[in-house]
Amino acid sequence: MSAYTSLMAYQRETEALSEIAGRLGWDQETMMPRGASEQRSEEMAAIESVLHARRTDPRIGDWLASAKPSNAVKKAQLRHIRRSFERSQKVPAKLAVEIARATSVAQGIWAKAREANSFKDFAPTLEQIVSLKCEEGAALADGGNVYDALLDDYEPGATTADLEDMFDALRPRLVALRDQIKDADQPPVLQGNFDEAGQLKLSAKLAEVFGYDLTRGRIDKAVHPFSSGSGQDVRITTRTVADDPFNCFYSTIHEVGHATYEQQIDPAYLLTPVGAGASMGIHESQSRIYENQLGRSRAFTGWLHGQMIDTFGDFGIEDPNIFYRAVNAVQDGFIRTEADEVQYNLHILMRFDLERAMMSGGLAVGDLEVAWNDRFLADFGFAVDMPANGCLQDVHWSVGLFGYFPTYTLGNVYAGCLFEALQAAVPDLDAQLSQGNLTAATIWLRDNLQRHGGLYEPRDLIKQATGADPTEKPLLNYLEAKFLDIYNI
Amino acid sequence: MSAYTSLMAYQRETEALSEIAGRLGWDQETMMPRGASEQRSEEMAAIESVLHARRTDPRIGDWLASAKPSNAVKKAQLRHIRRSFERSQKVPAKLAVEIARATSVAQGIWAKAREANSFKDFAPTLEQIVSLKCEEGAALADGGNVYDALLDDYEPGATTADLEDMFDALRPRLVALRDQIKDADQPPVLQGNFDEAGQLKLSAKLAEVFGYDLTRGRIDKAVHPFSSGSGQDVRITTRTVADDPFNCFYSTIHEVGHATYEQQIDPAYLLTPVGAGASMGIHESQSRIYENQLGRSRAFTGWLHGQMIDTFGDFGIEDPNIFYRAVNAVQDGFIRTEADEVQYNLHILMRFDLERAMMSGGLAVGDLEVAWNDRFLADFGFAVDMPANGCLQDVHWSVGLFGYFPTYTLGNVYAGCLFEALQAAVPDLDAQLSQGNLTAATIWLRDNLQRHGGLYEPRDLIKQATGADPTEKPLLNYLEAKFLDIYNI
Repeated sequence: MSAYTSLMAYQRETEALSEIAGRLGWDQETMMPRGASEQRSEEMAAIESVLHARRTDPRIGDWLASAKPSNAVKKAQLRHIRRSFERSQKVPAKLAVEIARATSVAQGIWAKAREANSFKDFAPTLEQIVSLKCEEGAALADGGNVYDALLDDYEPGATTADLEDMFDALRPRLVALRDQIKDADQPPVLQGNFDEAGQLKLSAKLAEVFGYDLTRGRIDKAVHPFSSGSGQDVRITTRTVADDPFNCFYSTIHEVGHATYEQQIDPAYLLTPVGAGASMGIHESQSRIYENQLGRSRAFTGWLHGQMIDTFGDFGIEDPNIFYRAVNAVQDGFIRTEADEVQYNLHILMRFDLERAMMSGGLAVGDLEVAWNDRFLADFGFAVDMPANGCLQDVHWSVGLFGYFPTYTLGNVYAGCLFEALQAAVPDLDAQLSQGNLTAATIWLRDNLQRHGGLYEPRDLIKQATGADPTEKPLLNYLEAKFLDIYNI
Repeated sequence: MSAYTSLMAYQRETEALSEIAGRLGWDQETMMPRGASEQRSEEMAAIESVLHARRTDPRIGDWLASAKPSNAVKKAQLRHIRRSFERSQKVPAKLAVEIARATSVAQGIWAKAREANSFKDFAPTLEQIVSLKCEEGAALADGGNVYDALLDDYEPGATTADLEDMFDALRPRLVALRDQIKDADQPPVLQGNFDEAGQLKLSAKLAEVFGYDLTRGRIDKAVHPFSSGSGQDVRITTRTVADDPFNCFYSTIHEVGHATYEQQIDPAYLLTPVGAGASMGIHESQSRIYENQLGRSRAFTGWLHGQMIDTFGDFGIEDPNIFYRAVNAVQDGFIRTEADEVQYNLHILMRFDLERAMMSGGLAVGDLEVAWNDRFLADFGFAVDMPANGCLQDVHWSVGLFGYFPTYTLGNVYAGCLFEALQAAVPDLDAQLSQGNLTAATIWLRDNLQRHGGLYEPRDLIKQATGADPTEKPLLNYLEAKFLDIYNI
């Protein structure tokens, strides 16, 4: 057997075990009896320990040194394996264990602090995690930029400098748009109660029209919607809120974007590194284009409006144009995950700056709450009322996800680029969307992006799909055109 | 760290991984999307390969040699680990791989042959498996009895000679009882359709009254009911048949017997070898005593009758005595899993003889169908109509389970012994059962048997719980008293 073949056989088994670990996570959020958590921690630790040992096995280094990839796919496979292996070689085992232990404890501490609405209950833990992640970043950076080294885990090839340029270009136009909207007439708010069975039924129909393959997936309820798994078994969850069916519908469409991406990767890549999404940013671009550019379009909401009347009867909004405005309402809010398309990226820009300030030492962790609240007031024009709605709202930092937040905005930027190209490729897109027909859109995304999985680096993938390097301009143009129209500005 | 501590830390991780593999099996039967089977095979193979490597790790031999157990629990832990490790050392790796591969393929071939109703489609595969299992048995037996060596996997300490004596004592009295029943007046058969929601609701109530802890378990539907898992996460499945609600109710109670056994083991044994049922026979004794001696008693069916009227309204049987007779109807049937209490063991006795004949070479595998049909006619008094109802009905042989069948009857025998002791210990048992109150019965089983897990050898466990060595007499006495009464003989 060649070194490449041996390495890939080994890797395939690792990927299979990793799918099992992922499904265990799915089970925990959907099916696990509540009294099983202690045993489940041991089970998760056991499989993670097997995976860690496999990923750091010195034979990988030998195989990588001898493997002679004969084509682009094989080169891409090795690129992924090498990145992961080199990363594991750079981080001292003792530090990796310490980070695993600290973040596992920190999540519980964060949840309690959020419940108690008390940042000081979380601050010492966060301080420890920031310090550990700085140490890890320094080990990975090899003298280079520490934050870049962490970012690279989630978005290979992205740099702080590039992101700063992009985000600096986003901020003024987003703020200007948001300020114009604030002064305009506001659309009506959806009111009333929408029964759960109806929400779940229409949610399943939305999953289907967006191309989610239920023979290789399933939909369950969970507290936080997520997508999980790869290849032939990609599961999503959704949730229902009685007076806010949009929460259910757009959570579902968002997760279907993530899930169909995994489902539509070339089956030849099953259980290999290339057989998964290219990066967090690319993944988010798929969930976002499904949810926003397609799902919240005037054309598609026209169809959804009819579906809601069929499902729930008269619910108080008869005019599809008013329905479209209600779906896209821009409103004050503290919470990132509930933010509208215009303000969402302002949340990310703020987190990007704050997490870099903590890592560089420019912001003491103990001062985060004050810094957060000052920045929020400046960016959003109203004050945070309590830490649970402020710096304690996201789980990310507690589990060590530094360098992750910017990939959300990168996803939105990529979605903007892809949507521009999709509109050019499918001239009658709106006519199709107004019939609830996503076929041409999802096939275009499959053929130009999704099927490649991790074959290309993220920026190259976008360039190949759209014909141009990714920039923030298409997203801004799209947002301005859409929301100036909605708000009659 | 002492050798014992090191070994147990290692073993604990293995047990956790084994729980994960078990849960993957549960997922496959309940939740897995149907298009995921190819990927799932690779996942199962990957975790099985991890488990195999761990179970044969030479360090286990070193630890076992140096460990100095200081009490009975530690001795029992080592007894289990040593048994499993020595077994793995005796079977050549090549043979183990061959058996794994052959049985994995054979299950599919068996399913197709059963569907096609053609034994000759399965015969060559079965021949191969018999030959491999003989080879394995010989390797394990070290010159001793080959069948005993296989039996020992499922029922440590049991021997063919003991079973022959026991089964020889069972057969004549079971046949005599069955023949008397055949000549007696038959009870009415339950008729009508029983809606699924009602069946599942009452099934869940039955699980609850029999003490199944849903905070550490859950109930789902599956084609074949089963119980899965240990410790804090023990899940069961059930099924519904529109015109046969007893199928659902008694499947549930049976699986609850298996599941509560695992749930009630001393929590100090969590994720250790002693933290699981003592043997297949002991496990079956729990499912059987829950299902039959308790669940099909006159007292309990009186309560169940009222529950069924509450759930389904008038269903055509008003008299609880007639209901009791309907629940316990002894009827002609080809299928072991559907057999009544009287005839069930005749099915097992037949399989025990046939599988030993195939292994000893006394019966050529190609002649199994004829031998089966002849024996069935002789034992049951009517002819097998087709192989799917005959020698192709059970999955066991296709997956290499030789030496497993007798544990079903051992379970019934143990249940007979335990029930005799339980009746003596709880004099007002019937009064409690007639109220749907299983508390005293299940607590007695917990305290005298279940909590010990695998601490004792099976026969010692029964002796400790009942005060006597297990024999077939209590079972026979119970069956004769019950069924002579039911059939007014």
